[in-house]
Amino acid sequence: MANGQAKERLPEEKVFKDPVHKYIYVQDYLIWNLINTREFQRLRRIRQLGTSYLTFHGAEHSRFSHSLGVYEITRKIISQFERSGYSGWPIEEKLVALCAALLHDIGHGPFSHSIEDVFDTHHEAWTCRLLLGDTEINRVLRAFDSSYPERIASVICKTYHEPIVVSLVASQMDADRMDYLLRDAYFTGVNYGTFDLERILRVLRPHQGRIVVKESGMHAVEDYLMSRYQMYWQVYFHPVTRSSEIILRQIFRRAKELYAGGHAFGWMMAPLEKLFSGTIDIEDYLALDEALVQTAFSAWTNESDPVLSDLCQRFLNRKLYKYITMDQPDEKLWHEIREQFRVIGLHPEYHLEIDFPYDMPYHVYRPGTAEQAEKEEKPPILLLSGDDRLSEISGRSDIVRSITGIHQGKYHLYYPEEPLLESAHLLSAKIRELFALM
Amino acid sequence: MANGQAKERLPEEKVFKDPVHKYIYVQDYLIWNLINTREFQRLRRIRQLGTSYLTFHGAEHSRFSHSLGVYEITRKIISQFERSGYSGWPIEEKLVALCAALLHDIGHGPFSHSIEDVFDTHHEAWTCRLLLGDTEINRVLRAFDSSYPERIASVICKTYHEPIVVSLVASQMDADRMDYLLRDAYFTGVNYGTFDLERILRVLRPHQGRIVVKESGMHAVEDYLMSRYQMYWQVYFHPVTRSSEIILRQIFRRAKELYAGGHAFGWMMAPLEKLFSGTIDIEDYLALDEALVQTAFSAWTNESDPVLSDLCQRFLNRKLYKYITMDQPDEKLWHEIREQFRVIGLHPEYHLEIDFPYDMPYHVYRPGTAEQAEKEEKPPILLLSGDDRLSEISGRSDIVRSITGIHQGKYHLYYPEEPLLESAHLLSAKIRELFALM
Amino acid sequence: MANGQAKERLPEEKVFKDPVHKYIYVQDYLIWNLINTREFQRLRRIRQLGTSYLTFHGAEHSRFSHSLGVYEITRKIISQFERSGYSGWPIEEKLVALCAALLHDIGHGPFSHSIEDVFDTHHEAWTCRLLLGDTEINRVLRAFDSSYPERIASVICKTYHEPIVVSLVASQMDADRMDYLLRDAYFTGVNYGTFDLERILRVLRPHQGRIVVKESGMHAVEDYLMSRYQMYWQVYFHPVTRSSEIILRQIFRRAKELYAGGHAFGWMMAPLEKLFSGTIDIEDYLALDEALVQTAFSAWTNESDPVLSDLCQRFLNRKLYKYITMDQPDEKLWHEIREQFRVIGLHPEYHLEIDFPYDMPYHVYRPGTAEQAEKEEKPPILLLSGDDRLSEISGRSDIVRSITGIHQGKYHLYYPEEPLLESAHLLSAKIRELFALM
Amino acid sequence: MANGQAKERLPEEKVFKDPVHKYIYVQDYLIWNLINTREFQRLRRIRQLGTSYLTFHGAEHSRFSHSLGVYEITRKIISQFERSGYSGWPIEEKLVALCAALLHDIGHGPFSHSIEDVFDTHHEAWTCRLLLGDTEINRVLRAFDSSYPERIASVICKTYHEPIVVSLVASQMDADRMDYLLRDAYFTGVNYGTFDLERILRVLRPHQGRIVVKESGMHAVEDYLMSRYQMYWQVYFHPVTRSSEIILRQIFRRAKELYAGGHAFGWMMAPLEKLFSGTIDIEDYLALDEALVQTAFSAWTNESDPVLSDLCQRFLNRKLYKYITMDQPDEKLWHEIREQFRVIGLHPEYHLEIDFPYDMPYHVYRPGTAEQAEKEEKPPILLLSGDDRLSEISGRSDIVRSITGIHQGKYHLYYPEEPLLESAHLLSAKIRELFALM
Repeated sequence: MANGQAKERLPEEKVFKDPVHKYIYVQDYLIWNLINTREFQRLRRIRQLGTSYLTFHGAEHSRFSHSLGVYEITRKIISQFERSGYSGWPIEEKLVALCAALLHDIGHGPFSHSIEDVFDTHHEAWTCRLLLGDTEINRVLRAFDSSYPERIASVICKTYHEPIVVSLVASQMDADRMDYLLRDAYFTGVNYGTFDLERILRVLRPHQGRIVVKESGMHAVEDYLMSRYQMYWQVYFHPVTRSSEIILRQIFRRAKELYAGGHAFGWMMAPLEKLFSGTIDIEDYLALDEALVQTAFSAWTNESDPVLSDLCQRFLNRKLYKYITMDQPDEKLWHEIREQFRVIGLHPEYHLEIDFPYDMPYHVYRPGTAEQAEKEEKPPILLLSGDDRLSEISGRSDIVRSITGIHQGKYHLYYPEEPLLESAHLLSAKIRELFALM
Repeated sequence: MANGQAKERLPEEKVFKDPVHKYIYVQDYLIWNLINTREFQRLRRIRQLGTSYLTFHGAEHSRFSHSLGVYEITRKIISQFERSGYSGWPIEEKLVALCAALLHDIGHGPFSHSIEDVFDTHHEAWTCRLLLGDTEINRVLRAFDSSYPERIASVICKTYHEPIVVSLVASQMDADRMDYLLRDAYFTGVNYGTFDLERILRVLRPHQGRIVVKESGMHAVEDYLMSRYQMYWQVYFHPVTRSSEIILRQIFRRAKELYAGGHAFGWMMAPLEKLFSGTIDIEDYLALDEALVQTAFSAWTNESDPVLSDLCQRFLNRKLYKYITMDQPDEKLWHEIREQFRVIGLHPEYHLEIDFPYDMPYHVYRPGTAEQAEKEEKPPILLLSGDDRLSEISGRSDIVRSITGIHQGKYHLYYPEEPLLESAHLLSAKIRELFALM
Repeated sequence: MANGQAKERLPEEKVFKDPVHKYIYVQDYLIWNLINTREFQRLRRIRQLGTSYLTFHGAEHSRFSHSLGVYEITRKIISQFERSGYSGWPIEEKLVALCAALLHDIGHGPFSHSIEDVFDTHHEAWTCRLLLGDTEINRVLRAFDSSYPERIASVICKTYHEPIVVSLVASQMDADRMDYLLRDAYFTGVNYGTFDLERILRVLRPHQGRIVVKESGMHAVEDYLMSRYQMYWQVYFHPVTRSSEIILRQIFRRAKELYAGGHAFGWMMAPLEKLFSGTIDIEDYLALDEALVQTAFSAWTNESDPVLSDLCQRFLNRKLYKYITMDQPDEKLWHEIREQFRVIGLHPEYHLEIDFPYDMPYHVYRPGTAEQAEKEEKPPILLLSGDDRLSEISGRSDIVRSITGIHQGKYHLYYPEEPLLESAHLLSAKIRELFALM
Repeated sequence: MANGQAKERLPEEKVFKDPVHKYIYVQDYLIWNLINTREFQRLRRIRQLGTSYLTFHGAEHSRFSHSLGVYEITRKIISQFERSGYSGWPIEEKLVALCAALLHDIGHGPFSHSIEDVFDTHHEAWTCRLLLGDTEINRVLRAFDSSYPERIASVICKTYHEPIVVSLVASQMDADRMDYLLRDAYFTGVNYGTFDLERILRVLRPHQGRIVVKESGMHAVEDYLMSRYQMYWQVYFHPVTRSSEIILRQIFRRAKELYAGGHAFGWMMAPLEKLFSGTIDIEDYLALDEALVQTAFSAWTNESDPVLSDLCQRFLNRKLYKYITMDQPDEKLWHEIREQFRVIGLHPEYHLEIDFPYDMPYHVYRPGTAEQAEKEEKPPILLLSGDDRLSEISGRSDIVRSITGIHQGKYHLYYPEEPLLESAHLLSAKIRELFALM
């Protein structure tokens, strides 16, 4: 495709039917071509919410849907900036912003958080590798403008020379968050995660390299942040989802350990092997989708290692770990629990995990000081008064302040229930009481 | 679990958050235990709408969600029958009906229609095998009542001695259809597939072994049938979905053919091999989910057979066949097209397919005569007048009659576009014109 | 306000929160000023659906809301025509079209259909009088452009020189109908009246002085017409609403008759008196809103005329006439019923009314021939094929044909139930049977 | 109707289509008969949100709709208590509770808050008068059970011997508030006022004479209270609505003053005259609906008193007072403003009003201590822990605490803008600056 042709708009707008935004509108060849790359299509095989579908059965939507949604919200914001003729928006950056919005998640692997934990990979790094490496996406971008791969990668890395473009894709009220809150609410079916997107869009303003909020929009932002708060506690931090993530991580840890120990797997595939050995390249990474991971787990239910096969069947058949809620245990109690687990033949390193919701990649809302904001990834939400002064929202809103840094999570201790029930008589009275095995 | 205990109701109702019905209520141990079997959990790995997600990106929902929804609608219908004290409903059949509703789809494999076509399997037969064979579901049912596996299987096979139970799960207005129309509309995002479920439930009546509709509910039924009509033409018969199904079927046909010819696959797994050889048993069938199928396709993009590898990458990367719309071609034209395809190195048996929407497992609405109704699987919709007379709805409603047996579909000819574009100069003028290659 | 200033756009877009369209956007001073006139504000005191609120308690919305909605849909259609750069749309007509959309209903009086029936007024004629007479609306329009009052009146009268502007406001798929179907569905709460507005807007095209529909939009139009069909039978033709309209009309007839006979009303107000005497002028017409009509009815419950006071308390306290459903009665039966009514002291001219839904200002859909279409007010819906040929939709769609000219209504005989129950013993056996008084 | 018959259930459930709850179900003759009384039907002529329709044009719904909604939510709560067999619910109180829910608002007059302010009436007192006086409602209740009028009146007065019945109808989470939040959000179109009613209903428990909330429902309550918070600030406290209420109150004050001074009104009706003279009885009160009030205002636009006629046309034509936002003015400034208003011929007592949102009958949420709760009308929300301990929610939730007693309102000074613009040159520089008249 010739550069000239690619730059033109599509002769007729294309639309995708979308349950969250009704329709997603594509007007540029570039966007259309990016959607049709194999790397972007691969996002169909990676769920947006990881293991949450085991808690909320509707949450089976993919990162493909979400990526289109982030693109659409970004398109709407820019379109409103252009229509209103706001001076703070650099109109020549439109396509860069749209591409960054569309592609910001292409580096995600299957069940990203667990894999990143165990194998120390990072999806943003992979996004940049896919943008800059030998991929269809890279070719489509270069055919349009040879500077595009680097420019879009630098938006993702937050080093782009136009900070407002970064702000669109990565801030406390970016298109990414707005789409996932609405989308996750829609697919899980919880209606307390919705907020009035049109109302929010109307109060956003480009201002000195940032997206800020018109002062009169404070209640709209409060509504958005409360939706976020509700989604975090009702959906993202749900203890059953945490249980499934723990099992997932244990599977990866066990398989990696077995691999390192030279275990002869009854079933293996190259992308996994290279992941375990730390030699994974782009082709293998692209092959590593949730279908492959689930197929591996299914095959490994027949592995000779009992820990691995047990964990795999637990994940597939949703026989998750149970949990008890507790205050932070002291070293002594923690030691005793582990000892007692060993007494009945369990491996504490796989069969026991203590969890506190804050070890997670989500924050309800953290404003930070000005300096912290510099270092922090996500800039805070600023209100713009009539006389052009900016103020951080949590300094203005009691409600926002009330959810800032809330620590209402409790410690949860996760474990397989069946062996404890079966061997309750071998456990100490204290442990039996703690686990309600009377 | 002791039988006695199982028969009891759950001490506290369990709920599943569901986007379509808001909540799904489980009140019985039996239902709860069935949901927790591995065979039922496996439905999470089988999409409700097969390849439709390639056309409507939101359509990623599973048969697991749908099965819970069918259960919930059945529960609501029965609950209303009981509350109103209608004499036509055999109250002792409640749990049998709920089990049948919940389990009616457990025999579905991945992308069922394509697999059934190519390998001559049948999902209803598999449902019965799973009910009656050595499965967790069978054990849960037997623990509750030893007659349950057979009773539920006979509901599924439509031979049950209480025809009204069959009617609940399999008729023109059964809980199955009602859930899938609402659910598919919700997840695709098309709002013309919705109808007023509460209004429909209010006009259903048990009557002489059938579920019929109170006469005053005629407009409600028209509304429901129009939703169905819209869903069929806008979603189920969508030509892009048809294209992806054709590719899927060609993959299975090609792989089966290669296997029969002794091809040494670079990658294979036991459940597939047994499917190809016609020796698949319950364990393998259960392992055969969409994750495994997609993993196979991903591996086969590297197969030495160019037809198979091309088809697999087309499916995964959504490089689907294009189509042209035409009247039914005569034998001569059909022959010429095939010849010309061979000229440019294509295999007509894999690269060409003519399709008419009616070769499909859906019918908008077909009333049938009384005798036909006996033979037909799905009994028609009957209106019950004040003086207890029954009349088939299409005899009463012009609108229903207008959509009965509508044949507005055209023939579509599907083919890969790239080779035709590249070799257009080798094709006859007639063929170039037909495929718009000028 | 100076002309120059008025022509400018508002410095900042104004919005109205609207439950149907989410937001209504006003961008022009002219529109803003028209909304703020007393004639337009008066529409707040006239219900959109007349007496339907006595059947559907949510239907309390006013013509004010609806008029804003028609404006908003018109704005969206034009905005899409402009964005797509369609040649068939005369861009200089935008404001004329928006004004006509906003103002098309300003001539409506309280419970229009009944008043028009009894007093032989016509709301379209009043709309033109208000546009052209001594009103705030006239002044606002003239201040903007002296030709505007006439131009907008001629759009309303369907004589405007640009027929496409008329088509926007008055055709089978005009902005008026689209808004009222969605709005009436929303406020009554029936969800079968909804259709996908965004989908419809996407398939409209300006074409040779008409708004036509892209051929591929046929199913979208079917969906819209089915919504209309459902709304007519479920809402607009509802027999309880018909009953309340009959009572309303009888009140007006009786009051007019009493006035003509020189009856000394215990309570009267000038606008009513002038309505009765046929001398009503603009000022009085503007004062004639639903508040005044209801206040009159309330006062007249104390009138000395028993017929009038009975009818008024029936209307206010919703003691409506009952109805029986029947085939068209012959002259003889009709005579007998009237005689029998007299026997028990009822006045057939006030206490008896036969009704067939087609004596109403609604038609589900009537295509008409080309010539009829000329004469008919509302042009039919035309599909535009790829090769620019037009075809009327009922010639293409079985479904549309099935609802064209459907006559499924039955005759209803309305009467006050209480006197018949009390004096049943005085009636003939035949009449007792007919009215189920056994 | 004989008592025995009245006690029976309706042979077939009646339903009302309701946009908020989908359907409202009536199962008892008693409820059906109450709905059909003239006193209940009168609620159709009284808007639920007073003058809010002048700000949100969709807010035209009546107290009739709301009263049915409160009944329906109460029915659902009781139905769930009964199904779950909770011991804390006195099942014999069901009908009393349903009647109280249905009838709790029958004493409301037109634009209640303004009328109560000026004429010192009280709608709860009127509710009891209508229950106990010579009314259709009283007759229907007595026909059913002679103790019902008193019992229901004592629920409304919060003196009923079963406090849990009072709690259903009047507490921080009663059926009244739940319906109006959902209904007002629906009709205004603001979607931030919605919460998940089904989720709330599932966590309510009868407990020692109170309705409390299961501990795990804390987030659901937070969501409900946040909806309330948003509705108060976005809808109920909206400054434009406040402006229309101020004008309304001034009209009543002026008319009362004129009446007291012996002014000869050009137009008057008995119910208003008796309201002014403090001699209003039941019949007149029932005739006093919003139609009559609006008709009076319309007639008074022609009154000789310029203050009254100006205020009336302002209200009808929505020429409301403008406002400026300010900190609490000191006595000196306040005095100066009033003096300056007099300079240009305005009457400060009618043309100037300072307003602080807290002079209003709404509170976002105020928990109160146990003693205060006794005295306060609305008991606080209590969480019930697993071990049966109760705790007030604002002691548990940071979010609830953050909205408790929030004082973010500012003072607003309302005034007619036109005279100030016209006579700006006569005003002091300070006043010109304050009112931005430079």
